[in-house]
Parts: sequence; structure tokens; C-alpha cells
Amino acid sequence: MTGLSNATVARLPSYLRLLDDLEGGRDTISSEELAAAAGVNAANVRRDLSDLGFQGTRGVGYAAPALRDRIRRELGIDRRRRVAIFGAGNLGTALAGYAGLSKRGFDVVALYDVHPARIGDQVRGVPVQDLAEMPADREKDKFDIAIVAVPAGAAQPLVNALVGSGVRLILNFAPARLSVPPGVHVRQVDLSTELQILSYHG
Amino acid sequence: MTGLSNATVARLPSYLRLLDDLEGGRDTISSEELAAAAGVNAANVRRDLSDLGFQGTRGVGYAAPALRDRIRRELGIDRRRRVAIFGAGNLGTALAGYAGLSKRGFDVVALYDVHPARIGDQVRGVPVQDLAEMPADREKDKFDIAIVAVPAGAAQPLVNALVGSGVRLILNFAPARLSVPPGVHVRQVDLSTELQILSYHG
Repeated sequence: MTGLSNATVARLPSYLRLLDDLEGGRDTISSEELAAAAGVNAANVRRDLSDLGFQGTRGVGYAAPALRDRIRRELGIDRRRRVAIFGAGNLGTALAGYAGLSKRGFDVVALYDVHPARIGDQVRGVPVQDLAEMPADREKDKFDIAIVAVPAGAAQPLVNALVGSGVRLILNFAPARLSVPPGVHVRQVDLSTELQILSYHG
Repeated sequence: MTGLSNATVARLPSYLRLLDDLEGGRDTISSEELAAAAGVNAANVRRDLSDLGFQGTRGVGYAAPALRDRIRRELGIDRRRRVAIFGAGNLGTALAGYAGLSKRGFDVVALYDVHPARIGDQVRGVPVQDLAEMPADREKDKFDIAIVAVPAGAAQPLVNALVGSGVRLILNFAPARLSVPPGVHVRQVDLSTELQILSYHG
């Protein structure tokens, strides 16, 4: 993990997706192709990749396999990442079945809920466990990323418990602002925010 | 709609959320409070609001009700926006019930699917309609924003049909890159991308 800007980090997945999906046999990629994939200009791409220590060759482009490996290492997905989903309702169930997660480096290894009627169900081959089992699972290092898919009112108490068990990476889909201590990273996916940004355009 | 940068537009919902949730009686807000809400610094806030034609008063801050109205107008949510969800599976059902949408200016007015077994169901008081009814509904201006919550393989054909019926604002939750003509705006919420950005941090 280097000191990349948030904007650069946010573009790396777009570059990586293009590199992951390159047709076999291609061993170079141009800054223009990378720019189109990320919706930025080629100068942005060259600066981003230079920050990663990568220089392209004029008229040739970047060495695609090496760049792919470098971005995967930078994003910390050169190893498989283990994801636990909290909340086995419609949203958690949908996220557990999200296509392409495995290809992108993520395995959904656990699903937790507090409703007795849901515990024991299987969702895409993953059993729904009682949330009470989470701390013991964490001690065994069962997962390292938590996805919060519980109702808004349940989100902060859940996150307090997660943080107390040492979870540091949280993706929050609940419509609630979360408060976490320094060193814990939360990304928020908020439907209202997305719709508001979209509304600006028409 | 003015010529705001994408970064500024992306911060407006955070400012607005804070202004919407202000305790009664507060009629000013500081750039520091707005900065904390958006996770940026106060200089960013002052530049963003200056781009909106807003100047604060030193030691006092910004006039909160006027700023709130201005941001709502800028985002195009000074009127109610009508949202249709495509796909009434787990994801579409979860999105239809997303808390706080109404408070933020959005009404889910329609839900479409292609599976006969789902058509006619009620989800949060909204009937699931046959996708074949979409073009006629659009002619009646039933909705103006489309949320795509169908499987990856169904997303591009659906979006082609939406664009053909004049839809210009699309929020895509399907793990598929969409191709649309100029003038159509797509925002993509991609679970893999979110997890990759989060993975960078640990």
C-alpha cells in the first residue's frame, strides 16, 4: 500500500477490469484504452500509472500482464479476500449471488443474520449463521471484509460489534452514516446519493 | 444544470443530507460542518459553494435554508423524481424498500419483471408489471429514472429498450458495462469495484 490519492485508487479497478478481460495474446495496452475504460483522459492514466512506478513505451503502450499484477498487488487482491455478509434478507441474498465476485478476487465465505427463521438456510451454498457466532469466526480469521446489509437501525450496533472483533474493512449498504474509530475503513453505497447525482443530469 | 465538475456534483448529496437533517432552529451552517459531512476540507466546500454562487459570512457561515433549496434545485430534486425498478428479484425488492428514498425526493412508482410468476405481486405497495408494459408507461411519463436490477446478461438488451423509449437516466446495479448513446447518463454501482477499493486499505 503506497500513498496513492483516493481518485487514483478509485480508478485502479476500472483499469484492472480491462486488463482482466483482455483477449488472450495481447501483451500491451495503451493509455488511451485504459482512459476509455475509466472515463478519464490519457494524461490521468499516465500520471496514475507513473505513481505506481509504471512507464509506458511511446507507440507501444504498457506491458499488460505486469501492469495487471502490479494493480492487483496494490489493491491487495493478489491473494483471495474473504467476505462476510451481514443480513440475509433480500439485499444480503442478492449480494451473495453477485456475479463475477470470485473472478475479481473475492469469496463470500459467511452470511450472518439474527432472525431464527433464516439461520440454517443455505444461500448459494453458504449457510446462514447466527450473528452470535461472528466473534469466534473472526478469531479463526474466517473473513477480513464485512458487507453490512441490515436495516438502517441495526447498522451502527452491528458495526460496533464488528470493530470490537477487529474488523477493519466495511462496505455499508445500509442507509445510515456509520461512526468508526481511526484505522477502520468504511465505504458507503447509498441509493439516495446515487439517484441524486443522476438527477443532476436531467 | 450548471457546469459543475463531477467531483462537486458528487459532494452535493453529502451537503444536502446534513442540511436536510439539521435540527430545527438552525439557520446557518459552517464550511467546517459541511466539510466533515462530505469528508473533504473546508476550502473544497467554499469552492464548491462558490461555484453555486454562494458566499458564506466569516464567523457566521452559510444561510442553511437557502443553501438547501439551491442544492435541491441544482440536483433537480426540487420536484419529486419518479423511479422505476427493473427486476423484481432479491435486489430489486431490496431497492424498492430502501429506507429514506421518499425523504430524499424519490418515489418508486413502478417495478417490472419478465417472469410470469412474479408479475402481479405487490412489493411495498407497488405492483410488479410485465416489462412489455414499459413503453406505454413511458409514453404516459410514468417514470423518469430507471434502476437496473436484472442479471448481467439481461442488462444491455433491457437498456437498449429503455433508451429506445426515451429513458435518459439509468442507475445500473447489474455487473455489466453498459453501452449507451450520447445524452444518456448511466451510473454504475459495482460490488467488485467497491470491494477492490476497500481492499487497498488493508
